[in-house]
This record gives sequence, structure tokens and C-alpha cells, in this order.
Amino acid sequence: MRQRHKPWADDYLKEKNHIVLENASVHKGEWRKVFNNDNPIHVEIGSGKGQFITGMAKQYPDVNFIGIEVAKSIIVSTVQKVDEEALDNVCLLNEDANNLLAIFAENEIEQIYLNFSDPWPKNRHEKRRLTYKSFLEQYQNILPDQGQIVLKTDNRGLFEYSLVSFSEYGMKLVEVNLDLHGIEDETNVKTEYEEKFSSKGHVIYRCKVKF
Amino acid sequence: MRQRHKPWADDYLKEKNHIVLENASVHKGEWRKVFNNDNPIHVEIGSGKGQFITGMAKQYPDVNFIGIEVAKSIIVSTVQKVDEEALDNVCLLNEDANNLLAIFAENEIEQIYLNFSDPWPKNRHEKRRLTYKSFLEQYQNILPDQGQIVLKTDNRGLFEYSLVSFSEYGMKLVEVNLDLHGIEDETNVKTEYEEKFSSKGHVIYRCKVKF
Ligand SMILES: C[S@@+](CC[C@H](N)C(=O)[O-])C[C@H]1O[C@@H](n2cnc3c(N)ncnc32)[C@H](O)[C@@H]1O
Ligand SMILES: C[S@@+](CC[C@H](N)C(=O)[O-])C[C@H]1O[C@@H](n2cnc3c(N)ncnc32)[C@H](O)[C@@H]1O
Repeated sequence: MRQRHKPWADDYLKEKNHIVLENASVHKGEWRKVFNNDNPIHVEIGSGKGQFITGMAKQYPDVNFIGIEVAKSIIVSTVQKVDEEALDNVCLLNEDANNLLAIFAENEIEQIYLNFSDPWPKNRHEKRRLTYKSFLEQYQNILPDQGQIVLKTDNRGLFEYSLVSFSEYGMKLVEVNLDLHGIEDETNVKTEYEEKFSSKGHVIYRCKVKF
Repeated sequence: MRQRHKPWADDYLKEKNHIVLENASVHKGEWRKVFNNDNPIHVEIGSGKGQFITGMAKQYPDVNFIGIEVAKSIIVSTVQKVDEEALDNVCLLNEDANNLLAIFAENEIEQIYLNFSDPWPKNRHEKRRLTYKSFLEQYQNILPDQGQIVLKTDNRGLFEYSLVSFSEYGMKLVEVNLDLHGIEDETNVKTEYEEKFSSKGHVIYRCKVKF
């Protein structure tokens, strides 16, 4: 995702630290307390500018959403959206997805969204793909047995790779959709990338998988 | 597949019964004897007019191929091709794929091809799809542990369904290709349907799976 240098980002994130929580790991095992209710928690990894997570939060007020985004200059856009719309069921973490086990306890999360994750097309970068087995191990740890991963992408290589990686790991495909926009689906909340690439004529793939 | 009535088909198939074997089940467990060698045996189910199986037989002379096709008026075209080219590593069975267990012994087959199988899009016809679990049970029986099923189709619904069905059955995806013709692949032998639908601009999907 295009990153403009934003010198004010640091200060802004500190000011909004009720939305972008610092020290995520202190909440491990206690995320329900952060939201002050027992609603299920869904996590989006690589939440970008936040169109998806804020759209989902409005569509599903009885679900709590946590967006994890490693880039400060990108996450600020999501903070602004959450702030303006005063969404109390979203919080954000400016963290790397490598650290999930430090942040979440076993079974603490109901669902994980991977939207248009960086494809890392070169073989030597396989380990960076968010569907590489080391990431799946983390997801397995924080999701309960029936918990799902929902992946959307327009990137054919990443989608093919992910299906095989899930399968090799012993996961089960619950749904595969090879043209998500082929039929009108009012419930589908589009991400920024989804809108952009779909308008360029790319097919959008989605799958849902569980362990 | 379009079937023209061919009143001569019955007589022709009888005449060519060294190519289209009658009483397939008498060879159960003894298919290597039929071919008179110990080469691996690959089976195509719904072999249509035979462009794929005859192309494969020429490309892989050290593999034996068995084509199973239920429609007499269609299988005759394959018989003619096998006859003209005097291929000794192909034989054909005018049988229904429901009967595989009567025809093959356990582990007798190395690979199964499902090419552009009838999609049976209506839910109530699910059981007729060649990737429905009752068929997978048969395939599992006749394939060894490392044996593969290779499926090609342009039908999105059938492909999506098949990936989920394989996964639910506990099978592993070895390869998924969501645009087989996206890169030049000299080794890919095209079927009649593949040529027709690809020239109409359809994407061709392929996957390889094992138990
Ligand atoms: C291609 S963008 C997609 C953004 C958004 N999900 C969408 O669909 O519009 C990928 C995003 O993931 C973030 N990202 C990549 N690797 C990450 C990681 N290991 N942990 C957290 N975020 C990551 C990037 O900074 C970027 O914002
Ligand atoms: C759509 S055509 C595809 C033909 C060929 N494989 C191709 O790709 O050009 C499907 C073929 O499968 C055959 N078929 C359908 N169900 C079958 C079954 N249960 N057993 C054997 N053949 C079957 C049909 O008669 C038809 O010839």
C-alpha cells in the first residue's frame, strides 16, 4: 500500500491511544474487558486504511473488531474513520502479525480476515506470506476449533498458494468463491484494494477455511 | 456432450472389441495383463471424443490409459482415433463411472483424470457430480496413497464445489491453477471442451489432489 511520509503520525497515534492501543500484550487473555462486553472478537490482519473494518463494525454492532496494521502512516487513516464515526466496537493495533501469540490468548478470537495481503510473489519470500505455515500455526492457536479465516484477494498466485498451504496444514475449506463480484452480495464489505482492483476488471477471490 | 444418434455404433463397438473391452469386470485386478506390461495405469472418466486420452498416450508411451465413457455415440470417436493411430497403450470402457469398484482392484490405478465433467449445477443433482463424496470413496479405493486426481474444467461452480468436496473428504490439494492457459505449457494436452471453451475466452481451472 502506498505510504506517504506523515511526520505527524506518531503524535496523532499517541493522542488517539484509546483507539490505537499501545502495549497490546497487556490485554492478552482480557480483550473482552477492553470492549467491556462478551461479544465475539474478529481480527483483521493488514487492515490498511480501514474501509473494511469500519464497514464491518457498522454492519455487525454485536461483534468487536481489532485491526492490526504494521504501517503507522497507513493506520492513521483508520484511526480517523473510527474517531469520526465514534465506533466503540473497533480498536486498532500498530503491530506486526508476527506477534499474534504475544497479543492474544488461546481461542480468544472467533474469526480472522486476511484482505488483499501482500502477495510476496518470489519463492524466497514465501515465509512472509500471511498464509505461510508459521502464520497458520499462530492463527490455529488463537482461534477456537470452529473459528474461521476469511481471505479475499485479486492476486491469483497468492490465492492458489494459500489454498494449497491451508490444505497441506490439514485445514478444511468451508467455501471457495472464484468470482466474488459475479453476483450482487449486499453483505460483502469491500476493502480499498477490492474496490480499486475490481474496478480495473480483476476477478476477486474469496475462501473461508477452518482448522 | 452433443450426441448424434449413430445406429451403427453398436456394431462398430463390437467389431472393435480389442479397443473397447466388453465385460470390463473380468479384468479386475489384472489390468496389467491386458496391457501386457507393468506400466502405471491412468484412467480418464468421461473421456468424450478422446482427444485428451489419445494425446496423452502419445506423449507418455510408458503409461497405460483407460478411458471410461458412458455414451456409445461419443466413445466411437475415441475408438476411431485409437484405431487409426494404432495406439497400444489405450483401452476404452463403455461403462458408467458408478461401477469403478467392479472394474478395478484396490490400488490398481495411479492417476485419475476428470476433464470438463458434467457440472450438474442444481443442488438436487449434487450426487451426480463426479466429485461428490460417493465417487471420492471409489477413487480412494482404486488409487494408492500417493495416487492423484487431476481435474480440469472451465465451470466455476463445479470447480468451487470440487475443492470444498475434496477438502471435506480430508483430501489434500497438491496444486491449484486458476488460469491454466495463462502461461504456455507444452505438456498440457487439451481436451475438446478445453479447446472450445478456452477459445471462447473462458478461464480454465485445474487442480491436483490426493488422499
Ligand atoms: C496490500 S495492503 C491491503 C490493505 C487492505 N487490507 C485492503 O484490502 O485494502 C496490505 C496491508 O497489510 C499491511 N501488512 C503487511 N504485512 C503485515 C504484517 N506482517 N503485519 C501487519 N500488517 C501488515 C501493509 O502495511 C498494508 O497496509
Ligand atoms: C462435458 S463432456 C467432456 C468430455 C471430455 N472429457 C472433454 O473434456 O472434452 C462429459 C463426458 O462425460 C461423460 N460422462 C458423464 N457422466 C459419466 C459417467 N457417470 N460415467 C462415464 N462417463 C460419463 C459424458 O457422456 C460426456 O462424454
